[in-house]
Amino acid sequence: MQHKQIPDIVIGRLPVYLRALTRLIEQGRQVTSSQELGERLGISAAQIRKDLSQFGEFGKQGTGYNIEFLASKIQEILKVDRVWDVAVIGAGDVGHALVNYGGFHERGFQITQIFDNSPDKIGTSYKDIVVQDIEVMREAIRKAGTKVAMLAVPANVAQEVVDQLVEAGIEAILNYAPVNLVVPQGIRVQYIDPAVHLQNMTYYLD
Amino acid sequence: MQHKQIPDIVIGRLPVYLRALTRLIEQGRQVTSSQELGERLGISAAQIRKDLSQFGEFGKQGTGYNIEFLASKIQEILKVDRVWDVAVIGAGDVGHALVNYGGFHERGFQITQIFDNSPDKIGTSYKDIVVQDIEVMREAIRKAGTKVAMLAVPANVAQEVVDQLVEAGIEAILNYAPVNLVVPQGIRVQYIDPAVHLQNMTYYLD
Repeated sequence: MQHKQIPDIVIGRLPVYLRALTRLIEQGRQVTSSQELGERLGISAAQIRKDLSQFGEFGKQGTGYNIEFLASKIQEILKVDRVWDVAVIGAGDVGHALVNYGGFHERGFQITQIFDNSPDKIGTSYKDIVVQDIEVMREAIRKAGTKVAMLAVPANVAQEVVDQLVEAGIEAILNYAPVNLVVPQGIRVQYIDPAVHLQNMTYYLD
Repeated sequence: MQHKQIPDIVIGRLPVYLRALTRLIEQGRQVTSSQELGERLGISAAQIRKDLSQFGEFGKQGTGYNIEFLASKIQEILKVDRVWDVAVIGAGDVGHALVNYGGFHERGFQITQIFDNSPDKIGTSYKDIVVQDIEVMREAIRKAGTKVAMLAVPANVAQEVVDQLVEAGIEAILNYAPVNLVVPQGIRVQYIDPAVHLQNMTYYLD
């Protein structure tokens, strides 16, 4: 599928639209409008219409959007109309919470590999997945062809692990380690750091 | 402290600068430059200089930034030169990982209250904090004067819990529930949803 160049910020809103649409489906709804979505998301209806129009015509003037149809189109655009294998690096509290999280599969992801360096953890199972030695990570990921990883290791080792992930063929990394990562062009990294999010809000408090 | 209106996107980068500076301090460094910070963060040096110049003069042309001084100034700007009490709602896997996370205190936060609705969890301790019944949440938060909350409850109850948090005086919410929240003007919400972050990256994969 060839797209014209769409701004990252527009792509960044699509998963949020998809989440809202999925919630509407769960609530038994069939049709929605850019106004309703906008109110739920705190985004203007005009912005939503403009974002979606980048990808084609998904609604009819006056009748709104068919929710199932729009959700399936956004899934297709985001390439989550399939299920991506995900490797988790780090079997601590965060890794554990990620493996236990029930919401990934329906959103396009399944955790298929877990790696850690602790002898206490290697060989134990998290759900049905055996924690493997981080020593074999590069080869195991390359062999499986995994493209997506979630990194939940201490900050001081994160960069060296990432270098290995990139060598192993990982192209998208969700980083829970509280440190910025340097990766080659073309490798995507997103960051989850609760303290950064909190600090972002305290600025506005009295 | 009175500031001129600074764009949210600039404020959003300050915690990332602070994290990088803290890492440099840990590495025993004393002076850095916008070039070095830029390389570590994948942001242009010019952008960093421009962002920081909004708040005053923190470096001298040619000699770079004193790291300790710049870090303490950013802490002051972000109001994390103090420690904020934080309430965690939901004592499941995510709540548990948050309580166990060792990195909050040095970054301006301490978890002081945990609430859940499960009889199995109420009365148990997470570290030194006793899980309280969500029924008493509103009163307990109001009494303690807590302003910051992290929400780790199921999506289908998140909005009603948030309504109570707002009534209780919470002004900043870090939301782990995979759903958008509607809050009154002036209440800040940030979102952590790993599936949204992952979907944001799969768009770019082949």
